[in-house]
Amino acid sequence: MVKAKVFIYNKEYEGLPKEGDLILKEEDLPPIEDGEFLAKAVYLSVEPFMRSSASVVPLGSVLIAFQIAKILESKNPDFPVDRYVVGFFGCRTYTVANGKGSMGFLAAHLIPDLEDVPLSYFLGILGTPGNTAYFGFLEVCQPKKGETVVVSGAAGSIGCIVGQIAKIKGCKVIGIAGSDEKGKWLMDELGFDDFINYKTHDLDEVLTQIAPNGVDCYFDNVGGKTTAILIKHMSDGGRISVCGTMSTYNEKDGKSFPTSLPLFCFVSKQIKMEGFLVYKWIDRFPESVQQNLRWIQEGKLKYRETVTEGFENMFQAFLGMLQGKNFGKAIVKI
Amino acid sequence: MVKAKVFIYNKEYEGLPKEGDLILKEEDLPPIEDGEFLAKAVYLSVEPFMRSSASVVPLGSVLIAFQIAKILESKNPDFPVDRYVVGFFGCRTYTVANGKGSMGFLAAHLIPDLEDVPLSYFLGILGTPGNTAYFGFLEVCQPKKGETVVVSGAAGSIGCIVGQIAKIKGCKVIGIAGSDEKGKWLMDELGFDDFINYKTHDLDEVLTQIAPNGVDCYFDNVGGKTTAILIKHMSDGGRISVCGTMSTYNEKDGKSFPTSLPLFCFVSKQIKMEGFLVYKWIDRFPESVQQNLRWIQEGKLKYRETVTEGFENMFQAFLGMLQGKNFGKAIVKI
Repeated sequence: MVKAKVFIYNKEYEGLPKEGDLILKEEDLPPIEDGEFLAKAVYLSVEPFMRSSASVVPLGSVLIAFQIAKILESKNPDFPVDRYVVGFFGCRTYTVANGKGSMGFLAAHLIPDLEDVPLSYFLGILGTPGNTAYFGFLEVCQPKKGETVVVSGAAGSIGCIVGQIAKIKGCKVIGIAGSDEKGKWLMDELGFDDFINYKTHDLDEVLTQIAPNGVDCYFDNVGGKTTAILIKHMSDGGRISVCGTMSTYNEKDGKSFPTSLPLFCFVSKQIKMEGFLVYKWIDRFPESVQQNLRWIQEGKLKYRETVTEGFENMFQAFLGMLQGKNFGKAIVKI
Repeated sequence: MVKAKVFIYNKEYEGLPKEGDLILKEEDLPPIEDGEFLAKAVYLSVEPFMRSSASVVPLGSVLIAFQIAKILESKNPDFPVDRYVVGFFGCRTYTVANGKGSMGFLAAHLIPDLEDVPLSYFLGILGTPGNTAYFGFLEVCQPKKGETVVVSGAAGSIGCIVGQIAKIKGCKVIGIAGSDEKGKWLMDELGFDDFINYKTHDLDEVLTQIAPNGVDCYFDNVGGKTTAILIKHMSDGGRISVCGTMSTYNEKDGKSFPTSLPLFCFVSKQIKMEGFLVYKWIDRFPESVQQNLRWIQEGKLKYRETVTEGFENMFQAFLGMLQGKNFGKAIVKI
């Protein structure tokens, strides 16, 4: 019998998650039946939505997460042994699955064999974050060459891709993040035009200086005060894509957490603001995966991962990501 | 020499405008030159933007306003004597103009001779408010048959048209306004399906009851708390058209007045919110005027005006409109 280690959502988060909020347990897995397969986790994805979705996950269930897993046994011809899958299996070391979707998320899917791309990229730039950056920016913001684009959470798994896609599209790109080290990475390695450390600088003042003609597109990962300041700086006809509101996830009642926005600016500047869930474009995912892959192969899209070793250290990786410690995509290597 | 009476913007508004904020003066008009005409005001339009645009109008200038005027003398073949024009002439009894635009607003234009439609409608349902309702609702909200539409400021000059267009398009329409008398008019005469008096009822509670499946389109004339509550009630993929934020115009620093909104709802419900200025669709105004006229002639679009008699009483009409005393379009008959 296979024993799986699992992280259970044990206690409702108050603010930043604490050690006891998740507990590590062992679970006996049943033998696989027809249509099922057994897979062993190789990488776990650590993402903001694991915190923001807490209220829809019942206490006592396995913490939600995407993972890459290797198929060890199979009674499902679509999922052959030794292949790797991306699955929404949760934080667990072994999984018995049938490859169908759950909780409205993607069904598990096989990872193609690509020699020049690391396997773990399928949790990031070739997975949900990559699809999110591609559609959430291009479809919602409709950027035009020469426009000024601001990305918050710019050094995160999605933000760093958005900024690079904006550069590919000929925009001037300004990243907002919380350390100068991140800023250096964004500018020196990823080609961002400018960077604002929101912890040490006055965002309002700096934007006045470096975006004097206003911001045409704002890709919002953080919400809160940052959004309010950006609205003031949007140009006429500016577009805001709301991907997440990371700055409010640890607030009590984060889902309805009120953010003070200058609403009249929406009228006077004809601003459009649109929130999205990436599954809106699920039928077009092959397009984003193919395009992001091509840009990687052409050297136009760079990627970085912050890797935590060991399943048991998942909580630390989760906490670190919520505190903004990661550069690029946070993952756990099992 | 023609003497014109004019209302001068004399003192910066603090909160609701007060008597002394505007002063009535007399002005000598010069004789008309080539390309000019002299016109006598017949109707003045009284609109919320006259308050909200205060900060861009210098003290000492004539209070901005649209008016309908009769051409008395002309040295411009495009503006013949005895015809009526709509012009952005300001609050004045006589005007010397050349028919060109000013302050980014429409140039003056001749009113067509239509026997079955009152002249004053060209300040309302066949003018800016009509164009605003038509494009601001149809283009931004993209309503579909069977959807639930909420309109705030529903008994105002724009809101009452939006609601009726939504009915024409097969939507369920809920109006929000500040008196039961207005509600009765909206439901009994204009065909709204439901009505909420925000002064006597809890908007949040009532919406839960009468829009249990959520609001698909919200046409926002008021901003503030109403917008925050509506965002909570939007359905997945809901669209918000921000036409104005009337509830904040009399606040200090009304243009950047902060409104607390549950920003995360934009993500989780994939909400789109877009503000607009109707001049965005200026090239398509003939379409909205023609369509609104056709609907009036077919009896599908009803209209009402709150008429104040006498140029001198313009201030009272302006104040009354800001206090929500008007049903439909507020105008002053000279």
